[in-house]
Amino acid sequence: MKIGFIGLGLMGMPMARNLLRSGHEVTAYNRTRGRAEELAKEGARVADSPAQAATGAEVLVTMLADDRAVREAVLEGERAAIASLGREAIHISCSTISVEMSKELERRHGERGQGYVAAPVFGRPEAAAARKLLFIAAGEPSQIECCRPVMDALGRGVSIIGEQPWQANLVKIAVNFVLAGMLETVGESYALVEKHRVDARKFLEVLNGTIHSPVIESYGKIISERGYEPAGFSLRLGLKDTELALEAAKSSASPLPLAGILRDHFLQALAYGHGDLDWAAVAEISRINANVVRTLKAGG
Amino acid sequence: MKIGFIGLGLMGMPMARNLLRSGHEVTAYNRTRGRAEELAKEGARVADSPAQAATGAEVLVTMLADDRAVREAVLEGERAAIASLGREAIHISCSTISVEMSKELERRHGERGQGYVAAPVFGRPEAAAARKLLFIAAGEPSQIECCRPVMDALGRGVSIIGEQPWQANLVKIAVNFVLAGMLETVGESYALVEKHRVDARKFLEVLNGTIHSPVIESYGKIISERGYEPAGFSLRLGLKDTELALEAAKSSASPLPLAGILRDHFLQALAYGHGDLDWAAVAEISRINANVVRTLKAGG
Amino acid sequence: MKIGFIGLGLMGMPMARNLLRSGHEVTAYNRTRGRAEELAKEGARVADSPAQAATGAEVLVTMLADDRAVREAVLEGERAAIASLGREAIHISCSTISVEMSKELERRHGERGQGYVAAPVFGRPEAAAARKLLFIAAGEPSQIECCRPVMDALGRGVSIIGEQPWQANLVKIAVNFVLAGMLETVGESYALVEKHRVDARKFLEVLNGTIHSPVIESYGKIISERGYEPAGFSLRLGLKDTELALEAAKSSASPLPLAGILRDHFLQALAYGHGDLDWAAVAEISRINANVVRTLKAGG
Amino acid sequence: MKIGFIGLGLMGMPMARNLLRSGHEVTAYNRTRGRAEELAKEGARVADSPAQAATGAEVLVTMLADDRAVREAVLEGERAAIASLGREAIHISCSTISVEMSKELERRHGERGQGYVAAPVFGRPEAAAARKLLFIAAGEPSQIECCRPVMDALGRGVSIIGEQPWQANLVKIAVNFVLAGMLETVGESYALVEKHRVDARKFLEVLNGTIHSPVIESYGKIISERGYEPAGFSLRLGLKDTELALEAAKSSASPLPLAGILRDHFLQALAYGHGDLDWAAVAEISRINANVVRTLKAGG
Repeated sequence: MKIGFIGLGLMGMPMARNLLRSGHEVTAYNRTRGRAEELAKEGARVADSPAQAATGAEVLVTMLADDRAVREAVLEGERAAIASLGREAIHISCSTISVEMSKELERRHGERGQGYVAAPVFGRPEAAAARKLLFIAAGEPSQIECCRPVMDALGRGVSIIGEQPWQANLVKIAVNFVLAGMLETVGESYALVEKHRVDARKFLEVLNGTIHSPVIESYGKIISERGYEPAGFSLRLGLKDTELALEAAKSSASPLPLAGILRDHFLQALAYGHGDLDWAAVAEISRINANVVRTLKAGG
Repeated sequence: MKIGFIGLGLMGMPMARNLLRSGHEVTAYNRTRGRAEELAKEGARVADSPAQAATGAEVLVTMLADDRAVREAVLEGERAAIASLGREAIHISCSTISVEMSKELERRHGERGQGYVAAPVFGRPEAAAARKLLFIAAGEPSQIECCRPVMDALGRGVSIIGEQPWQANLVKIAVNFVLAGMLETVGESYALVEKHRVDARKFLEVLNGTIHSPVIESYGKIISERGYEPAGFSLRLGLKDTELALEAAKSSASPLPLAGILRDHFLQALAYGHGDLDWAAVAEISRINANVVRTLKAGG
Repeated sequence: MKIGFIGLGLMGMPMARNLLRSGHEVTAYNRTRGRAEELAKEGARVADSPAQAATGAEVLVTMLADDRAVREAVLEGERAAIASLGREAIHISCSTISVEMSKELERRHGERGQGYVAAPVFGRPEAAAARKLLFIAAGEPSQIECCRPVMDALGRGVSIIGEQPWQANLVKIAVNFVLAGMLETVGESYALVEKHRVDARKFLEVLNGTIHSPVIESYGKIISERGYEPAGFSLRLGLKDTELALEAAKSSASPLPLAGILRDHFLQALAYGHGDLDWAAVAEISRINANVVRTLKAGG
Repeated sequence: MKIGFIGLGLMGMPMARNLLRSGHEVTAYNRTRGRAEELAKEGARVADSPAQAATGAEVLVTMLADDRAVREAVLEGERAAIASLGREAIHISCSTISVEMSKELERRHGERGQGYVAAPVFGRPEAAAARKLLFIAAGEPSQIECCRPVMDALGRGVSIIGEQPWQANLVKIAVNFVLAGMLETVGESYALVEKHRVDARKFLEVLNGTIHSPVIESYGKIISERGYEPAGFSLRLGLKDTELALEAAKSSASPLPLAGILRDHFLQALAYGHGDLDWAAVAEISRINANVVRTLKAGG
């Protein structure tokens, strides 16, 4: 397949590489060109603009940081992808973006007779490299089918949510909110246990023996060891995703009190200058506010 | 072993029965005598007072609802167990009680040369019946060893937290807080998804595929089907445990914002007259406040 | 003075009328033309577009609902005011808008050599009619001076915050947040008192005798009598202003937990379909969640 | 009148002194006897126990820190006041205590044919010295009348809430909650304004010009100048009063989210070791969490 690929970040790079390895023809664009050139060594063509990446593509994959990046690359101005994407071609958006942004993409692509599938992914960079991403897809069934080869080359499965693309984005946002909620919960409970000078490793053992979740297990370990660097997913992005949940809550008039706490704790972490730590460090805020530790970093 | 047993509720009854089946000699007391007489058919002796249950016992087991019930049965007045428990005998408290209460029990038993082990349990009534409880124990190592036969007859394992009994109570409180936090998190995310009229079963599938926790799986199912009756553990008890977390937070000066939300949502459920539903129904408050449903009960 | 005026809503109409009465020459634009024509009877010229209202004006006043309305009228497209506002002319923005929007207006006007003063107002429609508005102004001192005759014709005073226009917007947002916080506080305390069936009027008397604030006095009365119609300032606008506070909190990394509660309570009110009631009705959410009343409206 | 007086703290001392000056016969008890002896110079008799202070008194006044102190002095043991208070004598309790405690006092005094009036006060030590306290009274009308001379000698007015004593305690708790809520609101708004480096004094001016409350004015000044020492009313007592509100909320099943935030912020202040500062310092927590300041004390 002829594939355009925009966004060669921590996630996008291994994804594009895997497409090449599966035999697809990939034309890649990245804002800082160096990363695209790196990929050229593995057979990719380098595009000078999003528009060039989209030219002639059957499927255009975007893997970008946020709404703003998607808007810039896909919708705005002459160099944007939408202008040169062919009729019948399909844009598959793998980024975690807002429900509103997804609706706008659907409308704008629809006006030009282009297809649009939302397919945000679960998995960290290692999972991307190992073709173990999980896709949450929504859109017209026939369009989703067209994108199957792409998703098959990159992941371990596809959950289809519905026929309106934004539904996949909402589910992705809601699951990320649950993950963040678990971080907050574990963080508060840790602070409580540590403030009483009870052995937190024993607590973690009991917790694992009760909840039996690899998510609690891995984040519990990170929080226990305060191992927030390098970040698999940063506090800054955690804040972004919490804001996406709050926006979705606002547009549907759904109170979301836990998201309010998360927002404040992410903001406090940013106020202390640590937005680049792993988002599990949101647990440190509970420790700081209980005066168990002084700073977000180990040794503090 | 000669065992005194106080508290034949949903949990206590199957526990006492299992002690009998393991060949122990059990003298049982329950506030409403009928339940003790039921157990008499299986070989227990019926005590007229907590004091009588404690007389001659090597180990005294208590499995009661809250601090007040423990205080009444063990500490207060002439009929209380402490007055007749022998020197060297050991009280093993399996109830979920406060850190303060546990410290008072330790002190009072210590003054009389009696032993005291805190060993709260995880597991619902079915687990109690199936000898699958998990014990979280703390106390003097030699005293814990004396209680081993009791715990072995009732559960699938013992996690030893430390040498001060209250430490086990704190860990139990903290883990229950994590469970409640997960209920709140799942409840809010459900409300968000449902308010957007996205298929909540799809959402639950994705959630299970991401978190892989039997806890999320079972509670997700209950919340999905609104199956809050009969209660395995009631909203009223959920509020009690949240208050225990808040007390432990207060005595150690640890902020615990999520516990504040939980408290308010349990109170709202009680204000609506539904304290007897399963505590998973705390999720309904998010639905009600988003106007997805009108009442806590299915059909509302 | 030659004045352009955009936005003849509940506030803008009496303001424009007062400018006419003070002898100024007013060219007025409103999205629904009827209101402008009404004003024509009192001597205003009717503009067909924001651009026409700005043409030839020494001072351009905007009094609009939110960022979106300001962007549309002032910045976007050929009919927007900025295109035809003269060099040296000054735009005085009286709307409650975001810090970001205000910064963008400053930049865009600056690029064209136009002046820009932010001067949001305190006061309800009656105060606007009675020339009793309070202006919170910020901008270049000389530009503020040029706008003095306008503010003198409309209000009872001007507080100058600083030389950067957005500073006035931030102060306005922060004060509105304090007002909303007082509503929430009074609302929760009312629910507590009423749930105990204690006479709430007695409570209000004591409160007034303690706090001595006309704000508590007037809102306490509204809440006491549940007199939320007609709205002086709606729940919907209350939510908008809370969102402005949250945005300002985000851009400066300041946690704001009370704003989180307010947001959720405004959203709950909207979820129940009552966004048009006076924002004091946010107090009803506390009553509803304590099951003191069933609906937001009197009689519920 | 023959008056027994228990509790010569910051508030009790000037109150007892004013009773003496009004010509009443006062027998005073204080846990640390020195303060009672000080008062003896002004004509008081010194009691060796609460019981002795109550002996022969027509009215017994208590002005104590919390439930525990009242329980100890009035109800528990042989030296407690209730044992020697005469039939028909009246206990007027001026402390801020819980609704539950007040109900227990009513019941216990009633059993002995003694009267009981709850009459908590508003006012700081200076107001107590200047006979400017405000009494919030509840109880049997005839009993309240008997206590009039006492209240007239100490304050500037009496608000009668109802015939059940606990109603006065609830109103006192609710009003203190409103005051604490205003502190939180002002604290958060200050942090927001300061984080943007906008002149906070200008903000305070605008706030005062909008809210017109001496409470906001005086607390705004304290917060502005960070003048938290000496404390008129400490953070520790602020926490106690917030807990009273939360207890009253629990017993009536009323959610109270703002009280949850207050509790967490008072706890954070205590965790940092500053429980003795004035309760207005709760505002510092917002500053600390936004990283505007590093510690609760000026200069931090």
